[in-house]
Amino acid sequence: MHHPGNVFVVSAPSGAGKSTLVQRLVRSVPDLVFSISFTTRKPRPGEVDGRDYFYIDDERFEAMIREGGFVEWVQVYGHRYGTGRDWLEGVLASGRDVLLDIETTGAQNLRKVIPDARMIFILPPSAASLEQRLRSRGKDSDEQIAIRMRHARHELELYPAYDYLVMNDDLEIAYRQFESIVFATRAGRERMAPAAQRILDSF
Amino acid sequence: MHHPGNVFVVSAPSGAGKSTLVQRLVRSVPDLVFSISFTTRKPRPGEVDGRDYFYIDDERFEAMIREGGFVEWVQVYGHRYGTGRDWLEGVLASGRDVLLDIETTGAQNLRKVIPDARMIFILPPSAASLEQRLRSRGKDSDEQIAIRMRHARHELELYPAYDYLVMNDDLEIAYRQFESIVFATRAGRERMAPAAQRILDSF
Repeated sequence: MHHPGNVFVVSAPSGAGKSTLVQRLVRSVPDLVFSISFTTRKPRPGEVDGRDYFYIDDERFEAMIREGGFVEWVQVYGHRYGTGRDWLEGVLASGRDVLLDIETTGAQNLRKVIPDARMIFILPPSAASLEQRLRSRGKDSDEQIAIRMRHARHELELYPAYDYLVMNDDLEIAYRQFESIVFATRAGRERMAPAAQRILDSF
Repeated sequence: MHHPGNVFVVSAPSGAGKSTLVQRLVRSVPDLVFSISFTTRKPRPGEVDGRDYFYIDDERFEAMIREGGFVEWVQVYGHRYGTGRDWLEGVLASGRDVLLDIETTGAQNLRKVIPDARMIFILPPSAASLEQRLRSRGKDSDEQIAIRMRHARHELELYPAYDYLVMNDDLEIAYRQFESIVFATRAGRERMAPAAQRILDSF
């Protein structure tokens, strides 16, 4: 996929603090657009169609697969999630950057389509701190927490596939690193070469 | 050269604002050490031995070349400049990062010894703005400014050899990009892999 804009992918185990970091980044950084995924799961209380996800039924999702409408899609716990191709191509062609929040399997699939995507993994400081955060949220039963912890371990095993590893121990430090990845990428040679060539031509 | 610390190299045409950016970065970022070069040129008024350069004579410089004491060295306008190997290896082995301010030829030489050095080029916004900055400094004659402008053009032609291109139009924006390159590099997979592995092992 040819694109002047940068693609950032962020993954993290549940409870690592990804949502907080992502929301702050998208609010703070200009010309960075958050990608909204399609899903076949039902909206949870408080979720809004077109803000959290585009909620579609299985039939529509399968039609989009057939039409090549997804850059990547995965099935997790019986529900499907996918990144729409038309929307992504449109934003990138406009030169803006896109941040995709996708779980690890989807992220590996996206890498195949967009090899120069910058892949960022948010790490919890330790297993103990992750479990504590999951418990303090008060949303999950003991059994659900045990499942999340096992799932977190599987996700963490994929860290070598990511370009950047941001450890979320101190939120301010983690946020600064996260944001720096975006700014540094924007100063990358490929992105800046046309401007550098214009400056050189002015001599 | 094996090293746990990161190496950052910054080059720029005279008048692009490199010194201001470098001084602020070294003051602001912890565990980032500025590399002091050896030179055979005489100290200018206000320069201090061991702060701006290590000033040595030609004989000592040649002895250091013979002993393999330089990671890179170059001759510019009849004077020699070099980066000392012992000092650099010591700092990097301690895990700290090093920032080297070297002109373009020396930077290409350093790249051969430290292939994973992050090379940063500071760009002036245009030839006209660079000339205006050089004039407003009031340090150079018209002839010297003409020489600097021709030299700037030659240096700018080497931008494709750099990893990052930071345009210094607005100083605050340029500084933020410059600093972000350091923070993002520190969140890079290679650097963070041991921590990530420890976290994984805690599960």
